[in-house]
Amino acid sequence: MKFYDCSMAPSPRRVRIFLAEKGVKIDTVQVDLMSGENLKPEFLKINPRGIVPVLQLDDGTCIDEAVPICRYIEELHPDPPLMGTDARSRAVIAMRTRHMEWDGFLSAAEAFRNSTPAFADRGIPGQVGVKAIPALAERGRAGLARFFDNLEKTLAQSQFIAGDRYTIADITGLCVVDFAGWMKIQPTDSHPNVQRWYRSVSSRPSAAA
Amino acid sequence: MKFYDCSMAPSPRRVRIFLAEKGVKIDTVQVDLMSGENLKPEFLKINPRGIVPVLQLDDGTCIDEAVPICRYIEELHPDPPLMGTDARSRAVIAMRTRHMEWDGFLSAAEAFRNSTPAFADRGIPGQVGVKAIPALAERGRAGLARFFDNLEKTLAQSQFIAGDRYTIADITGLCVVDFAGWMKIQPTDSHPNVQRWYRSVSSRPSAAA
Repeated sequence: MKFYDCSMAPSPRRVRIFLAEKGVKIDTVQVDLMSGENLKPEFLKINPRGIVPVLQLDDGTCIDEAVPICRYIEELHPDPPLMGTDARSRAVIAMRTRHMEWDGFLSAAEAFRNSTPAFADRGIPGQVGVKAIPALAERGRAGLARFFDNLEKTLAQSQFIAGDRYTIADITGLCVVDFAGWMKIQPTDSHPNVQRWYRSVSSRPSAAA
Repeated sequence: MKFYDCSMAPSPRRVRIFLAEKGVKIDTVQVDLMSGENLKPEFLKINPRGIVPVLQLDDGTCIDEAVPICRYIEELHPDPPLMGTDARSRAVIAMRTRHMEWDGFLSAAEAFRNSTPAFADRGIPGQVGVKAIPALAERGRAGLARFFDNLEKTLAQSQFIAGDRYTIADITGLCVVDFAGWMKIQPTDSHPNVQRWYRSVSSRPSAAA
């Protein structure tokens, strides 16, 4: 297998942390998103959508999107389980992970891409010629504020985002919080449980991935 | 179990079609999104995110988001398999489903919500006070055009979206195409394989769900 990564990007970091938690190493190729290497013909042969992460299987099949990649790794390396151990826990973890993605990751990406000069012409991943929309950066910032408030409610009720075990939902949440930090949007004093959780997950060795 | 649905909405339709393909019936509660019933306290107790679909399990756990709900149903009722039968097919189907969501569904939702007067103050699902952004409606329409072009490439290579079997990726794709139709954005003569596939999937009895 081969893993197409970009060391500074939040999306592939989800897979890197997942692999670190599993203790799994995969041959890795760095793709430089800032210079647009992901949009060049050579990479588009690997992933026509022009995004990382991508996991190329030994039969040549390329899987893009972090969660399907993690699911594949989870099936090959079930321990420690990061995506649940029965139908209910798998559903809850998948749901919480999607909350992190749709409410958190999407908001952070909206805020970042639509306010960063280097992405003025790359308003969405994997495309050129999509103009930034300043009002969408504002919507993204407001979305992140709601995200932190909702995450506080979740973490007031459980140790981790999807219950009492560390899972892929926590990995995704950590990547969102650090991504939001790029825009100086951070948990505040009104988010004590988010702060407690963040200290815990960001101090795991995998967080350096 | 109890299923919270809205019969006119594209997202819960994914679950309805999935259930119809499985031949599974679940007690269903209609939630009227147009009048904002999803934003009232009674429903927010079921799902604080204010969106449908939601599956309430017998222990009271509420699962929102279509794919986690479908995954739960798939585990309870494995036949016919709609989410894969081994690690590779599960990863490919999950990936293709996400392509339908991020490239298709998100574009259609952007185009619809940011151009429809009734949603002028509801630019994202489950919230009030998020103003429509007209430029985002345009971005969504352009995204749908790219979505159809990419779907044509996928369907030129396989009978269904994730290979030679009907799966949840086709269900999601069908719901995107019909959602795009609300905005009069449809496959054209340059999308013969999309048209071939659409005739096939929309003629299945489940498509009436």
